[in-house]
Amino acid sequence: MPTKEEISGYFMSLQDNICKALEKVDGNNFREDLWERAKGGGGRTRIIEGQHIEKGGVNYSAVHGKLPKKIRKALKIEKTKFYATGVSIVLHPKNPHVPIIHMNVRYFEMDNGIWWFGGGIDLTPHYIVDEEATLFHQTLQEVCDEHHLQFYPKFKGWADEYFYIKHREETRGIGGIFFDRLNGKEGMSKERLFEFVKSVGETFAPLYLGFLNENKNKAFTQREKQWQLVRRGRYVEFNLVWDKGTKFGLDTGGRIESILMSLPQQASWIYDFQTEEGSAEANTLSKLKRGIDWVNA
Amino acid sequence: MPTKEEISGYFMSLQDNICKALEKVDGNNFREDLWERAKGGGGRTRIIEGQHIEKGGVNYSAVHGKLPKKIRKALKIEKTKFYATGVSIVLHPKNPHVPIIHMNVRYFEMDNGIWWFGGGIDLTPHYIVDEEATLFHQTLQEVCDEHHLQFYPKFKGWADEYFYIKHREETRGIGGIFFDRLNGKEGMSKERLFEFVKSVGETFAPLYLGFLNENKNKAFTQREKQWQLVRRGRYVEFNLVWDKGTKFGLDTGGRIESILMSLPQQASWIYDFQTEEGSAEANTLSKLKRGIDWVNA
Repeated sequence: MPTKEEISGYFMSLQDNICKALEKVDGNNFREDLWERAKGGGGRTRIIEGQHIEKGGVNYSAVHGKLPKKIRKALKIEKTKFYATGVSIVLHPKNPHVPIIHMNVRYFEMDNGIWWFGGGIDLTPHYIVDEEATLFHQTLQEVCDEHHLQFYPKFKGWADEYFYIKHREETRGIGGIFFDRLNGKEGMSKERLFEFVKSVGETFAPLYLGFLNENKNKAFTQREKQWQLVRRGRYVEFNLVWDKGTKFGLDTGGRIESILMSLPQQASWIYDFQTEEGSAEANTLSKLKRGIDWVNA
Repeated sequence: MPTKEEISGYFMSLQDNICKALEKVDGNNFREDLWERAKGGGGRTRIIEGQHIEKGGVNYSAVHGKLPKKIRKALKIEKTKFYATGVSIVLHPKNPHVPIIHMNVRYFEMDNGIWWFGGGIDLTPHYIVDEEATLFHQTLQEVCDEHHLQFYPKFKGWADEYFYIKHREETRGIGGIFFDRLNGKEGMSKERLFEFVKSVGETFAPLYLGFLNENKNKAFTQREKQWQLVRRGRYVEFNLVWDKGTKFGLDTGGRIESILMSLPQQASWIYDFQTEEGSAEANTLSKLKRGIDWVNA
């Protein structure tokens, strides 16, 4: 059975590999901030302000200690100690034709023997290109199918629900996969679940770098830049209003700058912004819906 | 006793007067959107994208209907109908030397006979100028003192707590006054409380126009503009994470564009932004604290 040290060690190397791969394409390097959590553990926050990635974070952390009361009550369990480790990524590209991406893999365990894996990858294109959306979802489906045939449909639906901006009646982007509390009830051992989580982590860099390389030098207009800033505004709204991970971090006194690295360098709110009928912006907006079968679109 | 029609009518005229006063100084006019609430009532949203006010909203609304279950449970009361009316203002100026301002006056009543007034004015300078902060608080104190000697100290403290950005350990700005559920228990009649609320509403325009006129043509640097965008990012964080009014609106299906008019046209998040020692930015940051006695500063 993989131990927490093994899982956490793997996450550190995953962070290293992803940063290296991104640096190679972007040209700029990450800066690193090491931080400690007063009540136990800490992390390595890595931030890039790049030539193509305007602002990006690739964060690793491993924290432990007494389980906060708030979470204990939510889980309805006795006092216990916890250990949580993971890698979280958000990349905001400069070019509006490159999508925003988010990836997370995490592992959680408690002294009472309860453990689980969670994570996912989802894509937020400023402009949805059907072929890219299909390629993205097909890739995730292939990765999932190697481990469990139910994973892709289940986790795709979960992402649709999770990344829904309720007050806007829009999804944040084209979704992807989202999963939480995988603990063996799926009929898979901890080893096999860890293998699945590794596959998800390792899918990230080649998949995103494909989109980045393809689009990073595309010309764009002022209007397209403006639209990007408006879409980033929606990203901020999702993360600050609805995202459970952000809320959890703010509630439990996590390192603010690491949590909020997900927010873009620049964002915009324009009163009652309307897209032009038949425009690329209107086309994108019409596809920010749950339940789209992107694999067969 | 002032009726809901009288109060709501007063709020409409207050909105008119404030818009006229702002237009005169800004040079541009407000656009108006009339909207209806499916379950009863509606509002007049007025937005300016001005020469000096980059983005501002002066909103009036009067909504009514069955009290939503969520609120009923929070208030621990039986089924009843409610009526809520108010004016809400947020102005984001172009010039970083002009402060952001927020004002709200509101009245709420239920069929069960319960009613109250709420509201306040608070100021968010990008750069705190002590003399302006003192003038702002002295003006509010004078307005309060005309009605009740306990109001200013009480409502100043309330604003300090309300506009606190917990996860940043900063106040949003220099505070002001905030009050809620004034219902006569203060030993004041409904008439007299209405007079107080009127005074607060009428203080807004002359007070803010003073700051606007004084600073709107001041020269500013790129660095000052940058700092303004970062401070606006904090404003977004407060409104989306902590503001109860915004949360209430999003939860109860209010008109999104009217609620989120409070968000700035442009905002910025820079990873681990640090102010320079001894700079004007550092000075401002050092004063974003609760409990500062601005009247005697």
